[in-house]
Amino acid sequence: MKYHLYYWPSIQGRGEFVRLALEEAGADYVDVARQSGKGMGVTAMMKLMDAKRVHHAPFAPPFLQAGRLIVGQTANILLFLGPRHDLAPKSEEGRLWTHQLQLTIADFVVEAHDTHHPIGVDFYYEDQKAEARRRAEDFRTARIPKFLGYFEQILARNPRSQHCLAGSKLTYADLSLFQIIAGLKYAFPRAMARSARRYKRLAALSQLIQDRPRIARYLASERRIPFNEEGIFRHYPELDET
Amino acid sequence: MKYHLYYWPSIQGRGEFVRLALEEAGADYVDVARQSGKGMGVTAMMKLMDAKRVHHAPFAPPFLQAGRLIVGQTANILLFLGPRHDLAPKSEEGRLWTHQLQLTIADFVVEAHDTHHPIGVDFYYEDQKAEARRRAEDFRTARIPKFLGYFEQILARNPRSQHCLAGSKLTYADLSLFQIIAGLKYAFPRAMARSARRYKRLAALSQLIQDRPRIARYLASERRIPFNEEGIFRHYPELDET
Repeated sequence: MKYHLYYWPSIQGRGEFVRLALEEAGADYVDVARQSGKGMGVTAMMKLMDAKRVHHAPFAPPFLQAGRLIVGQTANILLFLGPRHDLAPKSEEGRLWTHQLQLTIADFVVEAHDTHHPIGVDFYYEDQKAEARRRAEDFRTARIPKFLGYFEQILARNPRSQHCLAGSKLTYADLSLFQIIAGLKYAFPRAMARSARRYKRLAALSQLIQDRPRIARYLASERRIPFNEEGIFRHYPELDET
Repeated sequence: MKYHLYYWPSIQGRGEFVRLALEEAGADYVDVARQSGKGMGVTAMMKLMDAKRVHHAPFAPPFLQAGRLIVGQTANILLFLGPRHDLAPKSEEGRLWTHQLQLTIADFVVEAHDTHHPIGVDFYYEDQKAEARRRAEDFRTARIPKFLGYFEQILARNPRSQHCLAGSKLTYADLSLFQIIAGLKYAFPRAMARSARRYKRLAALSQLIQDRPRIARYLASERRIPFNEEGIFRHYPELDET
């Protein structure tokens, strides 16, 4: 089945967690808002979101169309894709655990985003710079260590593998963890460099994922949008460690 | 099966979304941190979270123990409970849709919380009052209408019922929507009173839920912790509309 992914065309954002899963799965998909032509582009995305005939309207992108089904919310899209593409364990317990990790990653993503938008998404960064500095400092010194320390420990405790978070094989949660670490390194290069030695298992996992053939090809392709200052992870030097 | 719910004992917080589902289901559960005695209390909760033998350690409360299984993350706990207690549709499509709505409610909850903690959970409210005022204003004027307008529209578009969000029967997402509306009314009474007429379907849904026999009994019981200024929804008059 050909999937249609709907997400903003100029940022990695939340859509990237879905793109990575689709790429690793070798799935057939079209990134609708990044294409032009009939039924493509941002206009098509907005039209679908607002269409009265869509009973299951998503609150925001990303959303994925699979035949008649429209699935929204990043973690929910991955919950849907996981079992279909061997990116989640087979048991109910394993699937719940993978999803739980994904939701914890989602919480972490919100906090990473809010470092540059602590007052709200309806204001420019320039209008909340002072607040952003305070929030980013707390994020770097308290929240990053809390989240990364947690995931490092989960890897250490996984009885079936030290190379993935859940069970003995790669899951969508591993791909998402790779993405958030890549984003943090982009946004806070100094803070992340200084703490790197504390998270050896996370570093090894990131490397493993980056080296997977499909992911490596994807990262080197034009389909991978570079990090930039419109997305979740923004490099504002004044928010990083001095 | 007797469930063990682990959550902070003095607030509704995120645990309340789980409590409401357990109560509506008439499930047998113990609210561990609110009990005293052997294996009970906050100490027992912290001990379980930190226990090395727990491979699937939750990042934070709430988490639910069901036999050998430990499930964390509010929305994930509801994903687990839904099909077991007839609080989710039977079809995969229906379950994904219910979960998608729950995750949108979870996003809304984070934003409601951040009105009083825009700089971070590691600082007191008193140390971020000015920032809280700005964030709360944006939340009241832009975000509440966006989220409530969305859910009102979802109710209007549901082809199978106008009294619930997903399918033709009550789901855990309806219970959670009731809870967030109750919380917003507590935290922002003036803003919510002024906008009430715009959300007729949401008001009707809230009333229906509040009147369900098990929920009504629960709300009147001592098991329902009153809203207070330690939880997600806090009534700080300076953050409400003037």
